[in-house]
Formats: sequence, structure tokens, C-alpha cells
Amino acid sequence: MTATLIDNIGLLVEPERERPNAALVYDAGLISWIGDSSSAPAADARIDADGRCVIPGFVDTHSHLMFAGDRTDEFVSRMAGRKYEAGGIRSTVTATRAASDEELLSNATRFVAEMRAQGTTTVEIKSGYGLTTLDEARSLALARRLTPETTYLGAHVVPLEYADDVAGYVELVTGAMLDAAAPHAKWIDVFCEAGAFDVDQARTILTAGIARGLGARMHAGQLGASGGVRLAVELGAASVDHCTFLSESDIDDLAAGSTVATLLPGVEFSTRQPYPDARRLLAAGVTVALACDCNPGSSFTSSMPFCIAVAVRDMGMTPAEALRAATAGGAAALQRDDIGTIAVGNRADLVILDAPSYVHLAYRPGVPLVSRVIG
Amino acid sequence: MTATLIDNIGLLVEPERERPNAALVYDAGLISWIGDSSSAPAADARIDADGRCVIPGFVDTHSHLMFAGDRTDEFVSRMAGRKYEAGGIRSTVTATRAASDEELLSNATRFVAEMRAQGTTTVEIKSGYGLTTLDEARSLALARRLTPETTYLGAHVVPLEYADDVAGYVELVTGAMLDAAAPHAKWIDVFCEAGAFDVDQARTILTAGIARGLGARMHAGQLGASGGVRLAVELGAASVDHCTFLSESDIDDLAAGSTVATLLPGVEFSTRQPYPDARRLLAAGVTVALACDCNPGSSFTSSMPFCIAVAVRDMGMTPAEALRAATAGGAAALQRDDIGTIAVGNRADLVILDAPSYVHLAYRPGVPLVSRVIG
Repeated sequence: MTATLIDNIGLLVEPERERPNAALVYDAGLISWIGDSSSAPAADARIDADGRCVIPGFVDTHSHLMFAGDRTDEFVSRMAGRKYEAGGIRSTVTATRAASDEELLSNATRFVAEMRAQGTTTVEIKSGYGLTTLDEARSLALARRLTPETTYLGAHVVPLEYADDVAGYVELVTGAMLDAAAPHAKWIDVFCEAGAFDVDQARTILTAGIARGLGARMHAGQLGASGGVRLAVELGAASVDHCTFLSESDIDDLAAGSTVATLLPGVEFSTRQPYPDARRLLAAGVTVALACDCNPGSSFTSSMPFCIAVAVRDMGMTPAEALRAATAGGAAALQRDDIGTIAVGNRADLVILDAPSYVHLAYRPGVPLVSRVIG
Repeated sequence: MTATLIDNIGLLVEPERERPNAALVYDAGLISWIGDSSSAPAADARIDADGRCVIPGFVDTHSHLMFAGDRTDEFVSRMAGRKYEAGGIRSTVTATRAASDEELLSNATRFVAEMRAQGTTTVEIKSGYGLTTLDEARSLALARRLTPETTYLGAHVVPLEYADDVAGYVELVTGAMLDAAAPHAKWIDVFCEAGAFDVDQARTILTAGIARGLGARMHAGQLGASGGVRLAVELGAASVDHCTFLSESDIDDLAAGSTVATLLPGVEFSTRQPYPDARRLLAAGVTVALACDCNPGSSFTSSMPFCIAVAVRDMGMTPAEALRAATAGGAAALQRDDIGTIAVGNRADLVILDAPSYVHLAYRPGVPLVSRVIG
């Protein structure tokens, strides 16, 4: 056992306070002591934070890293005015099916490393570019090598070969594909949106997953309001993601339930959609998370600091609220209480910023401010 | 002399073409050969670009790095709704005057290194937080240790001690302060905006600088349209910076003249102002540059990739136009022809991106994609 002391922390972000001149000890991956730098205990190793700010590692609860292929041209044409449509997903499906396990794993491994370098210490990874029993199962088995937070998203979009038999595809997703995917997945997710799956189909799919012991998540409200949010709350989903378009009753449902609203500002940035109104959700008492939605179509960022900067500029969040959403909010969206906050007993997933305050994540947009990642 | 070969370049961005499978040789800091990777000559050293994209180093022509003090709280209150005003500059003036030479130089050195890590190989640095003869001169003398592109900005804002005697301050700026600053400066700049200096004052100041052999630059159109742009063109200024608010006749003047329009999207991002319309300028045939305007008040980013991403999303530029503005456009704004483009004889200021295309600078916002900086 090696206890490590981090001292001379200029600002330590704890759940209920921001502690100046702080220190922290961790041991075997868990935080064992928090206090003032002047009264720090001895330890086996020491990291001098030199006045820097220390925050919890980011918890990025929404990513689509199991993919192959390239959609650079689609981005360029979208920026030139073409509208974003969910159907673009199918081009990635073709490339993903054609890729070897080694390619898929190496691609995803690179993105997880890139995220970590930007301060993300927990990442969720979805399947959803395989859309055959074999390809969904192998995507999840490979993702499981990178994170315990794996999500079965067979219901990402209806693949071309089922275009005339959506009911048949839902049967597959809730039948043989679920059987093959479930051993490698913690969560089940569905893209409940025009062009993907409707509310009835989403209910069938999530209910089948829950019956298999998977936790429920949902994509809803990306392109328009639907009944997806209500369904997510009704089924006790851990999170409903996007929430760009919400009705008043969606807000009421979220406020009354336990489902986290996960906002994905990278999507709005990269598709020129209007941003979700985080202020409205926070004012209603909804728990909000921020995530990157890293994927080659609608949001190819892996940068939680970038998402925080956009959330502060364009979504009505204060820097403190945005940081909380990117850490504790993400933990809530994964129903985890061991990550996302700096507290004794929690995992020592920590980021030392090259800045005196976490405010700089929004104040200095685009600047790589992650000095060191622990955990 | 050591010739270095970079081969296996996936995409090399030259002024008139994008060359796939390219190679390049540089020697004594200058590019000596460009061609196909398969026909690359031998060299003393070799860098394998491994399919990555190589672009010119960024030319960031607008920064205010000679400062001390902290304005984090001002940013937080602005994000909470307070309007940006030029007067906030004065708080930095107080801190800068109080700082030692060592503090000022160490602060600026850190930012130049931060910029370089993000691909910026040429940076302009302004004075303008001293606003006394002594403090402007020492700011420029210190800046000159970091870059030849130093700009005397005694006319940044009227300091408090001259609040009731603006004419007296203009006399100082064009007299004793200019005498002390000129030996350390290549350029003279003025903030021509309500709350700072009007068009007549700006004319007096720039004319005095030009008479001393300095090149002219100007801040105009940040907070509203004024006669600043016309004056800049009339005086043959190298660049007029901000250009957020432009009249039709401003566009005509810029199109008819040789002055570059330098756009600073970090300012609009961090002050929630509307973005400048780069498309309108490009359509009129105006040369456009992009710069960070790194300063602790209105734009604390040092990230040219971030500015490119915002320019593509919000200012109507294609990824290729934004890259050109951040490189060749910047070179034009400094009246330099040895930087900003990859061509034989030019400086070997190069960035190897961790991406197959420069499009990724916009496609992957916030992600640190600079793999290696040369030059």
C-alpha cells in the first residue's frame, strides 16, 4: 500500500464547498484524507499541486466509440448547409461491420486515451454501429475491455436490411441480439426519435432489457420533442440524453422522477442546432449531466472541457454548475456514488488543472488545461 | 547543416493545392523541397508523419500577453449577465504596473509556450496595460524577447489619471511615450471604439507612429460600427481587428484597399456578442485573418484550433478558409511572405496534426490535435 499526498492545492472542489490551500491523501485508489495543506499528514509519495485547482475526474456518460470508417466529408457538407439526419449513422454501420476486432478495439482505445488526457476518468461506451447479433455482441465485448459502463444500443437506427420490417428488427433487438449482447452490457439504450424508433418501440425494447437485468438509458429530444422523456422517467431510466427539445410536461416529469437529463452540447455545436436550456432544467430541480456524445457523425469531440465552455456560454449554466454536471451529474447518470465527487472513501479519480480555478475551463475555451490525471 | 525529411504525410496543405501522400525537406529552418512521399530525397534526419496531415504553423497576429493580475471574477459575473465594457482593461493596468519585469516576462513566456503547443509558430504581442511611458516601454522591451512582432498600444484605453484630459493623454502617446516605445516596437495600434479613442484621435496616434517608421494596425468594430475601418484603410494599416460590426461602406473600403480584416472569434465567444460575418467579407474579396486576441478580459483563449472551429460553425467559413485565415491570412496581416504557407524557400514553421485532415480542427472541437510543432 502506498499513500500519496497531494498538497499545495490552490482550490479543491468538494461537493459542498471549494476549499482553498487544500491537501488530499489517497491510498489504494481511494481518497483517505482531505484537509488544509498546512495540516496534511505524511505519506509515502507526494505530488505538489503548486497552487493549481483539483477537480473530480470527468464522468462522460455518453459515447459511441465502437466504430470504424470516416465521415469527414459529411461534416464538411453539413457545415456548407446540409441538414443533419440520423440516417448518416448507416454509413458508419457499413464500415464497422467490415472492420476487424483489432481495428475496432484500437480505434476505441485511442479515443479513451484521448479522453483521459482531457480529464475524463470514467467513460460509458455504447454499441450501435453493428446492428447484427454478431456485431453488437462483439462491439460490447470489446468495449467491456475498456470500461465497465457498456451500453447495448442495438436500437440505434433500423439497419437497411430491415427498412421494410421495423417490427422484425425490434423483435431481433429484444430477442437473439439481446441474448448475445446482455452478458457484455450494463445498460440498454434506444434512440427514440423521428427516423429511428417511436415511443411504443422504445418501450418494448427498454422493457425487454430491464427484464434481462440491464439498466435503462434513452436518447430523446435531439431533433424534436416526443414522448420519449416521459417514457424514460416512467421506466426509471438512469438518464435521458440530448433533451434539446423538451415540452413543459417533459420538464415536470423529469423534476418529479429520478432520471438524469444528460445534455450533449457537442451535438448542437457540430450540427448547428439550438442548445438545450440547462437553466430551465436546473430551475425545475432536475439533475443535469454533461457528456460529449463522441461519435463520428453528430459530435466528434471528446473534450469535456469544451462541453463545459459551451454549456456556460450557451446553455445558461454557471461554471460551477457545468463542472458539477460533468462530474457528479455524470455519476448520477450512471447511478454511481463512488465517482464524480471528491470525498473520503470515493475513488481517487482526480484532475489537476493547469489553472488556479475550474472557472478557467470556461474562461479559457479550447486551451488544454489538464495538467495531470490521477485514477 | 542538417536536412530533415518529413515523409508519409497523409495530406500536405500547400497554398494552391492539398497534396496527398506528400513529403517535405527542410534545412536551416527553411523548406527546401516538397513532393510526393514516394520520390522523397535522402536527408540527414527523418520524421515519419504516419499518414497525418501537415499544415503551416498558425500565425496569431493579435495578443495582449504583457499583463499581470486576475479577472476570473469579471468573467464569472459577465457569464451571469453583466455586459462587457472596455473599462475592465483598467484593472489589468493596475496589476501590470505593480508587477516586476520578471513576473511580466514569465507570464507572457508561459502563454507563448501554451500557444506553441497548440500550433502557433508566430505570435504578435501588444503592450497596452502599462499606459505610462515607463510601463509601455518595458512591456515592449520584454515582449521583444519573445517575438519580433511587437505592437505599441499606448492607446489601448485612457488611463484613470488622464480621465479628464484625454487630449493630454493623446499628446503623451504620440510624444514621450512613443519615443520610449518605438525602439522596441514594429507596429503601432489604437483601440478605436466608444469608451476608448475616437476616429480623430486614432488618426493622430497612428499618423505619429507611421512617421516614426512603425506599421499601423487598429482595433475597430468590436462594440459598434465607427469610422475606424475607413481610417485604417486610408492609412494603409496592415490590419483592422475585430470587424464584428461593419457598415456596407466599411466592406467596400476593405475590398478596395490592402488592409486585412482580422476576426477574433474568441472575443464573441467569451462576451456573448454576435459573431462577425466572415462570409460577407470573403465574398467581397477582403483578405481575412483569424487570431485569438488572448487577453484576460474579453478573450482568454490561446487556441487557434478553437478559433477555427468557431469560425466554421458561426462565421460562415469553410474549414479550408478558416485554416487559410489562421495561417496565410495572419501572415498577410503582418505583411510577411516568409510564413503562413508551405512553399519552398519559406520558413519551415509546420504543424503535424494528430488527424488525417485539417478539417478535424473544426470537426473535433476542443480536442488537442497538435501532434508536433516544428519551427
